[in-house]
Amino acid sequence: MLGTALENVRATTPLVHCITNYVTVNDCANALLACGGSPIMADDENDAPAITQICGGLVLNIGTLNARTVATMHKAGKVAGELGHTIVLDPVGAGASAMRTETAAALIDELPITVVRGNMSEIKALTGAAAATRGVDANPDDAVTDENLAEVAAIVRELAAKLGCVVAVTGAIDLVATADRALAVRNGRPIMGKITGTGCMLDTIIAAYVATNPEHALEATAAAIAGWGLAGEVAEGRMGELDGNASFRTYLIDAAYNMTADQLMNGAQIEEL
Amino acid sequence: MLGTALENVRATTPLVHCITNYVTVNDCANALLACGGSPIMADDENDAPAITQICGGLVLNIGTLNARTVATMHKAGKVAGELGHTIVLDPVGAGASAMRTETAAALIDELPITVVRGNMSEIKALTGAAAATRGVDANPDDAVTDENLAEVAAIVRELAAKLGCVVAVTGAIDLVATADRALAVRNGRPIMGKITGTGCMLDTIIAAYVATNPEHALEATAAAIAGWGLAGEVAEGRMGELDGNASFRTYLIDAAYNMTADQLMNGAQIEEL
Amino acid sequence: MLGTALENVRATTPLVHCITNYVTVNDCANALLACGGSPIMADDENDAPAITQICGGLVLNIGTLNARTVATMHKAGKVAGELGHTIVLDPVGAGASAMRTETAAALIDELPITVVRGNMSEIKALTGAAAATRGVDANPDDAVTDENLAEVAAIVRELAAKLGCVVAVTGAIDLVATADRALAVRNGRPIMGKITGTGCMLDTIIAAYVATNPEHALEATAAAIAGWGLAGEVAEGRMGELDGNASFRTYLIDAAYNMTADQLMNGAQIEEL
Repeated sequence: MLGTALENVRATTPLVHCITNYVTVNDCANALLACGGSPIMADDENDAPAITQICGGLVLNIGTLNARTVATMHKAGKVAGELGHTIVLDPVGAGASAMRTETAAALIDELPITVVRGNMSEIKALTGAAAATRGVDANPDDAVTDENLAEVAAIVRELAAKLGCVVAVTGAIDLVATADRALAVRNGRPIMGKITGTGCMLDTIIAAYVATNPEHALEATAAAIAGWGLAGEVAEGRMGELDGNASFRTYLIDAAYNMTADQLMNGAQIEEL
Repeated sequence: MLGTALENVRATTPLVHCITNYVTVNDCANALLACGGSPIMADDENDAPAITQICGGLVLNIGTLNARTVATMHKAGKVAGELGHTIVLDPVGAGASAMRTETAAALIDELPITVVRGNMSEIKALTGAAAATRGVDANPDDAVTDENLAEVAAIVRELAAKLGCVVAVTGAIDLVATADRALAVRNGRPIMGKITGTGCMLDTIIAAYVATNPEHALEATAAAIAGWGLAGEVAEGRMGELDGNASFRTYLIDAAYNMTADQLMNGAQIEEL
Repeated sequence: MLGTALENVRATTPLVHCITNYVTVNDCANALLACGGSPIMADDENDAPAITQICGGLVLNIGTLNARTVATMHKAGKVAGELGHTIVLDPVGAGASAMRTETAAALIDELPITVVRGNMSEIKALTGAAAATRGVDANPDDAVTDENLAEVAAIVRELAAKLGCVVAVTGAIDLVATADRALAVRNGRPIMGKITGTGCMLDTIIAAYVATNPEHALEATAAAIAGWGLAGEVAEGRMGELDGNASFRTYLIDAAYNMTADQLMNGAQIEEL
């Protein structure tokens, strides 16, 4: 499944419509291209529905949300839902402001989201738990560890059941769950948190994987996450003495670009919980 | 002309006002700086006219258009037109949505555009041909090849005549035409399509070249395109085994930065059709 | 103080809320991460006040201002002021358009700004002097040199007295002043002007330094500027024959990422005037 998932992306070049933040949007486009997809950005309410129609996936990322683009997210999401497209929601900063928490909740309520991806603090905020996010990063108290893995997996599965979609939590250990199953992914490196946008880039990659492997949304999401973590491992391994987070960013996207199906199959560390 | 065109840019550091998309805007700024120009971005309707006044060129790129910035494009374009400034229009995604097609048409109708640059699908959409764009990329059916070169050149010249400006179509073979003449440019590499924004960056470079060589808009546009393609060739030649599209992006702008007049004159592959 | 200032940033990971331009925002985020801070961007008027509350610093950068985000700057600034947060204002392009000059003046009038940072043309525009900015770059006539250093320092100190804050002017020689003191910083390299955003990135770094060293705003600002200039020196030293401004950008952020307290203390060239 893992290698096939990647090969399906590369073979079909899925178009992914991204309504995302202006901080990381360029990296999102290049990361998606690296994986074999093709990005389109459109956020005007009169433009986005038409653009969504010609795509296979839609990413809704509220990282720099505003009233205008939130309205567009709803409009585009409605069209994508009617067409059965993959919709990935990234509730950036849910729990950090009422507007973010409420916007994420409203999008979930009204749209047939396929995958929600966030850090543990954002995901907790979606469950209604009193959140203490640290801005757009997870609160250290919310770290997923071997000790709390079973407990956290139960929370994530419960949320997936409630939302009727795949829920992905990324962090030191990544968790991907539906109501029935939970997978842990143990790829990636801490330095991925030292650049902006590793999560946002992953959103677009997940959209491409799931759009081209729609019958296997859980596994395709896990494959995308494992592949991205693996790219982070390759990128860190390439760093020289003078390299820092900026070179790491370049190497990360490069590694995604050069990723092969074999490399993904051999390197992915995914376990069923 | 070729080397002189570049030298004129470097000697005068033309200011280029860019009302462009937020996906590739950072690369646009750095690519323009690499070529010897200086970027300014301003998209508020009360700010843009004043900024346009102090510049020599204006780029209108509808990649992430919205109602507010389209209105600003018209206002800034009017000022630029009255002052005789170079105006480059990039109809990103024309044909992919009604809003994009109509916005491009309205800008062309109302402003004295100097150069329109797009891929073949976008350019076809401007001719009123039934378009089948693939998002922001050209439809493979619209590829310019040696087989259809004469036919496509006729279409492009006809559009140039109708619009009264230079029309540039970029792809595997690039075409630049006025009503009377058509040039083919055979520089560049396919990997340029594996990063976002090579076209957007080129828009700003064309604006700088034409603004500083206003009597030779056709040749200056061809020189900018050839130089950019040549930078792509240098960048690809520099790629190592672990490099991917992200490193290519860096090398591309680096190559533009280091481009000399001699290098451009020796490497440019421009032919009159 | 210098090394301590950096160590305080790295030890506390200050959250910095940036309402900044979409041209350089990604580099701002990565540069801030490189220095040990953590970025959050939020520019909706209903979102920004809540985000500001959880941060320690606020950056207001008018590089691509519009009516909506200017209103948000005032709202967020009011909250930050009430909480005693560090507020850094970058009056990008003040003097180049009435909207920019007036917006900068209004933000200064209404908010308890901690640090204003700009190039000499922008700073002059704030003093009411007839300005002749060259877009977002300083007018060459406004260059700070050894010959006019004392004279310029007097102007900057006078402005700092009038505004009741730290004023930082960056250029070939950087000046940082309060009403009572003026420091010159002689780090940095001309190539820093060949990429977009070195000033914008510095804004966020200054915010992180001052937020974590609030009792020493003048010295913390100078430390941030010296460290950034030093990173530019390291980055330039790393450039190979094929490298250009794009590689320099990567190396610059890398150098900030790898900067140590010792390196900063040994390399900073700060003198009291």
